[in-house]
Amino acid sequence: MTESVQRGGVEAEGRYDVFHTDCPARGVVDHVTSRWGVWVLISLRSRSLRFYELRESIQGISEKMLAQTLRALVQDGLIWREVEPTTPPQVTYGLTEFGRDVGEPLTEMFDRITRRLSPQSTG
Amino acid sequence: MTESVQRGGVEAEGRYDVFHTDCPARGVVDHVTSRWGVWVLISLRSRSLRFYELRESIQGISEKMLAQTLRALVQDGLIWREVEPTTPPQVTYGLTEFGRDVGEPLTEMFDRITRRLSPQSTG
Repeated sequence: MTESVQRGGVEAEGRYDVFHTDCPARGVVDHVTSRWGVWVLISLRSRSLRFYELRESIQGISEKMLAQTLRALVQDGLIWREVEPTTPPQVTYGLTEFGRDVGEPLTEMFDRITRRLSPQSTG
Repeated sequence: MTESVQRGGVEAEGRYDVFHTDCPARGVVDHVTSRWGVWVLISLRSRSLRFYELRESIQGISEKMLAQTLRALVQDGLIWREVEPTTPPQVTYGLTEFGRDVGEPLTEMFDRITRRLSPQSTG
């Protein structure tokens, strides 16, 4: 694991600067872990959803924030967007292969937190 | 995996509302994936660090934001804080067992993003 972090990071004086703003991974990580990005990715883990379904499933998100979050994740190649030419047009979002790849550990992290905080937790 | 998400979430009309603000996991997930939380957890994955070491390793973080992020993660039980009674006092932070548990998939996610964006990537 260290090896690929090393490869992707910007090295300076023998130190891996993956924490620097010029590291290409940083922008994507920031989008994935943005205020709403994590919830969008976890929402889409089982199936693709329409815009309004996403908005309804994530409590507290505004239409503007959802649109903004989706735009960033589509640009990063984590999410695909499909528009059906109906009236009004129906827009569907789903995880790309990259999105699944990233969403899997994210879901695992979420699951570990949920398990730990669950009253029925046995460790 | 679905089972434990189900257990931790607040169920309403047969639907798991893990995306609701009253889900106990949501606050912790929000801290973990906060603007700086993810970088603090990844920074601490290999060893515990002093406050100034954390600040130096995460480009762009202010002292105020780092202090605020650490406070939230300590409160969530993800990070421990140790103060040595020297002059000035030296403060060290490290991952708790819960922090390691959560940091592992977070690091995996980070690693997958880095690998994908790396020019040497073979897939």
